[in-house]
This record gives sequence, C-alpha cells and structure tokens, in this order.
Amino acid sequence: MGTNLQYPLNHIKFDGNGLLPAIIQNDQSKDVLMLAYMDAEALEKTIETGETWFWSRSRQTLWHKGETSGNVQRVIEMRYDCDGDALLVLVAPAGPACHTGESTCFFRLLE
Amino acid sequence: MGTNLQYPLNHIKFDGNGLLPAIIQNDQSKDVLMLAYMDAEALEKTIETGETWFWSRSRQTLWHKGETSGNVQRVIEMRYDCDGDALLVLVAPAGPACHTGESTCFFRLLE
Repeated sequence: MGTNLQYPLNHIKFDGNGLLPAIIQNDQSKDVLMLAYMDAEALEKTIETGETWFWSRSRQTLWHKGETSGNVQRVIEMRYDCDGDALLVLVAPAGPACHTGESTCFFRLLE
Repeated sequence: MGTNLQYPLNHIKFDGNGLLPAIIQNDQSKDVLMLAYMDAEALEKTIETGETWFWSRSRQTLWHKGETSGNVQRVIEMRYDCDGDALLVLVAPAGPACHTGESTCFFRLLE
C-alpha cells in the first residue's frame, strides 16, 4: 500500500510507529471486544480478506486474528474518526475475542 | 496519583508517553463515540469527578471534555482490558461527542 493510498485511505494517519489503533466492536451485540493496532499492511490485509489483521506490538509481527484459535473476526463495516487517527471495525466474531476465553477483552470492571 | 496506585489501578499500564487509550462508548445506544488518551492525572480526575478528562496530544494539555462546548460525558462504568493497557468508558453524554457536531467521531465509512 505504502505511499499510494487511495481515497478514503489517504485520510488515515498512522502514528510515529506506523500504527493505527483499531477498536473492534461486535456488530450484533455492540459490545466492544478489543483494542488492537494495525500497520498499513494489516489494514490492507483486513480490507482484502474481510477478516481482521493486526500488528502485534509484543511479538512484533503481523497477526491474523484467529489464525491459531479459529476465532476469526469477519468485517461488517469499517469507520474512521474525525482526525483520521483511529478506526472502528464492526465484526461478526467466530468466537471469543480474548485469549482468556472471555467474549471481550474488557471483562474487568475498574470501579 | 503517581506511584501509589491502589488496586485495581495498579493493573493499568500507561505507555512510554504516559498515556492510556480510552474508548468512549454511549452507555445507552452502545455507539462508540471517540478514542482519546488519558494520562494518570486525567484518569484520576475522571474517577474523582465522574466526568471524562483526557490528555490532549495536539494541545499538550489536560482537557475536561465539554469544558467549552458543555457536552460533558458522565461516567457510568469503567472497564480495562486483559493487558491493562486500554480503557473502555461507558458514558451518558450531554451532547455530541465530536467537535464537528456529529454524535460520534466515527461518522465516516471507510468502505
């Protein structure tokens, strides 16, 4: 993808590390499932395949969500915010989003 | 707040810039309204006041959401994710979240 981004992708701003935060939301329940990061390649693969891909900051590698667990996330809709520096991805998940087995990574109450 | 974080706040990990991404979701409609960043002081003030505070990266200042527009966000519930490096804040908004006047900052469709 690199420098030849087409509209509206040319409105998307990656941060200094080349990453873009992506909020993943269940299209049916509207539960927020996770926050993960896409680099340009992950965004390209997400658009091409219709399933979510991310950049794993801990493993420093491209990551197809569900590639080991089978819990892929089918993309229903992608939105970007007014600043173009965050994505909202509505998905149909094949299973739990969280590696703990919880449906959402946000299963802990802060207060 | 600094180094004396109490449980469960001691499970929260700020990034290298001292920031934590916070997903703001409408508690009633479940619409995702915005993604913004909190530093420790913003998180402390959010908890103390029951309204959202952020760190503005563009203005490099603490920011009480709605302080000029009146569109404050009353906090209903706060959650943190499995890695402790992202927040989900469910709010009752007094008005539109976006400076454009749209109810959500994610009003643009990517595809």
